[in-house]
Amino acid sequence: MDSFAFTILGTQGAARRGELRTAHGMIQTPAFMPVGTRGAVKAVTHRDLLDLDAEIILGNTYHLYLKPGDAAIARLGGLHRFIGWDRPILTDSGGYQIFSLADRRTISDRGAAFRSHLDGSLHLLTPESVADIQLQLGSDIAMVLDECIATPADEAATRIAMERSIAWARRARDRWLQVRDDPQAAGVVVTNAGQAQFGIIQGGTHPALRTESVQATRDIGFEAYAIGGLSVGEPPPVMYDVVAHTAPQLPEEAPRYLMGSGMPDDLIECVARGIDLFDCVLPTRNARNGQLMTRYGPLSIKNAQFADDSRPPDPECGCYTCRRFSRAYLRHLFTAGEMTAATLNSIHNLYFYLDTMRRIREALVFGSFDQLRQEFHQTFSRRPQH
Amino acid sequence: MDSFAFTILGTQGAARRGELRTAHGMIQTPAFMPVGTRGAVKAVTHRDLLDLDAEIILGNTYHLYLKPGDAAIARLGGLHRFIGWDRPILTDSGGYQIFSLADRRTISDRGAAFRSHLDGSLHLLTPESVADIQLQLGSDIAMVLDECIATPADEAATRIAMERSIAWARRARDRWLQVRDDPQAAGVVVTNAGQAQFGIIQGGTHPALRTESVQATRDIGFEAYAIGGLSVGEPPPVMYDVVAHTAPQLPEEAPRYLMGSGMPDDLIECVARGIDLFDCVLPTRNARNGQLMTRYGPLSIKNAQFADDSRPPDPECGCYTCRRFSRAYLRHLFTAGEMTAATLNSIHNLYFYLDTMRRIREALVFGSFDQLRQEFHQTFSRRPQH
Repeated sequence: MDSFAFTILGTQGAARRGELRTAHGMIQTPAFMPVGTRGAVKAVTHRDLLDLDAEIILGNTYHLYLKPGDAAIARLGGLHRFIGWDRPILTDSGGYQIFSLADRRTISDRGAAFRSHLDGSLHLLTPESVADIQLQLGSDIAMVLDECIATPADEAATRIAMERSIAWARRARDRWLQVRDDPQAAGVVVTNAGQAQFGIIQGGTHPALRTESVQATRDIGFEAYAIGGLSVGEPPPVMYDVVAHTAPQLPEEAPRYLMGSGMPDDLIECVARGIDLFDCVLPTRNARNGQLMTRYGPLSIKNAQFADDSRPPDPECGCYTCRRFSRAYLRHLFTAGEMTAATLNSIHNLYFYLDTMRRIREALVFGSFDQLRQEFHQTFSRRPQH
Repeated sequence: MDSFAFTILGTQGAARRGELRTAHGMIQTPAFMPVGTRGAVKAVTHRDLLDLDAEIILGNTYHLYLKPGDAAIARLGGLHRFIGWDRPILTDSGGYQIFSLADRRTISDRGAAFRSHLDGSLHLLTPESVADIQLQLGSDIAMVLDECIATPADEAATRIAMERSIAWARRARDRWLQVRDDPQAAGVVVTNAGQAQFGIIQGGTHPALRTESVQATRDIGFEAYAIGGLSVGEPPPVMYDVVAHTAPQLPEEAPRYLMGSGMPDDLIECVARGIDLFDCVLPTRNARNGQLMTRYGPLSIKNAQFADDSRPPDPECGCYTCRRFSRAYLRHLFTAGEMTAATLNSIHNLYFYLDTMRRIREALVFGSFDQLRQEFHQTFSRRPQH
């Protein structure tokens, strides 16, 4: 596959500084991917994202399939053209949304039957149809459908879902290869011939299951691999251990994507354990709730103490929000219910995440990653700072 | 007053091409002023407004007085500094908001007693306190408190409110001059020494009352004059007639501001009758409701027919939204409830209004205003186009 390639530019311990080529351009890794569930990162415009230098965004297969539908998007030339975003897009498979959003879902070996959370309509998504949908969307990176389960789960339940996810992954890969080989015969409109497909490692917090999942998923063979089923409520050290156990078993030459993480310290700790790609709704969702992330920790902008505070949210931050606006004004916008509060807070939080990744990448180039990691933990606390 | 000056660069019939100098910079007139009620133009950032080249925005005295309060804003250096906007700001007096938003209001000669729509707290605003509040906010243009009445109103009721507005205007001017002369003695923190104060002409749709109001308000003497009490439900031709009757009686050398108008055709028709400044919530409010203004008329982006429409809202428009996004995507964002819909629609509508004013100004320079006016009416219809 020509349009997808990963180059490791340097390493420090298990951490990797890399460059990922996709059909819509390069991504410098380790990278954080802002989440644009329904084809838009909430509360910001694409030009805000370009100004932040987001190199890739996420779309969600479950949401886009339901509305406006992958067929409509394919008719309009694919997801990039539909949403007017020229840079890379990753689409997740919808497995997590079927699990967390859909009504009356029934998971069987065949796939997931459920009712839409929007209008109650009945749907069946299978590993094959989810591959087809993403080929019609034309994302640069497609994820296979996996089965998500309620956590914490015991080993037996985790094994069942893990084994089903492997069987689904094999079918997803077969279908994906078949459609790419002959889209017309498959009746699928492939809007991005350069799409890559990632497998997902499951197995919860059970090391043996993770190892089994890695082996089986590697045997199927994907362009790259993600670690799923984490950031679902387990304590951070447990997540870090699973990542430390799983990442080194993945092919060294392919990028590794930790799905759905996380807090800023998670990013640094998981880069240290060999992760290259991250996504999380936290910076944008928390922004809409008035929580701004700073290098000292989260700051709740609605607090009354900020009413007269003329300082920017983070005096050391270079984002548009911090360069132009005070805590007092941002508090006013938030408490007044102005939409602009969500926009300015999201710009700040995304900048913080993307800038943290930039600093990590720089540190990896200059061999100072361990120092950055130490310094980060010295100032950063997950407790609200004010 | 040095910081406030109006220069007429040219005229065509009653229409004027001018340049208004304020303490925070120049405004090319005729100009449209986007409304930023609570210190933010809804759904857009200041940098969106700079990109649109909005030269002045409005703030609302009623809203800012209640929250976060003019004293807090003065402590933070005034409204410009508080909201991070360096260009001119006009604050309206709050008269219309007391009339339309406040609970249990009692208007007497003394002023307006009312309960806050936010928390029910009791307030009294007088011509004097409204002048003080705006001096503390430090807007470049302050409006006097006037009495707004329910419409349609008979001549007797209109006369009573008009006469009270004149008495209030005299007190507002006296207080404003007194505070500017000695802020310390008045106990007012003047955050913008270059503020100008505008009087407001009332008198409803009754020409004789308008004439009386003009004479009395000119006798008091302000830096400039606004026409109030229009765009409150009267048919457009009635509004145009009142403007045509009133505007020529106002001092030729001062800018004329038509408050709260209007539809795009209102702008052109009232420029033709001698108006220099406009404001209206219509472009931003309608944007949030999914209505996009085009040179053919309003377009309701939520309509199902746009689901597969790859054209921009207005193919001839040069705004960010029209350059980058399709009707299909904008419809998707709106029907999905994405905040970005409000942002992109507001950017388009503000561009349309500001661009219409730009075209009017250019036509006035090149002597082609009558032609522009004819062409505009040939394509524009207030009926939804689709």
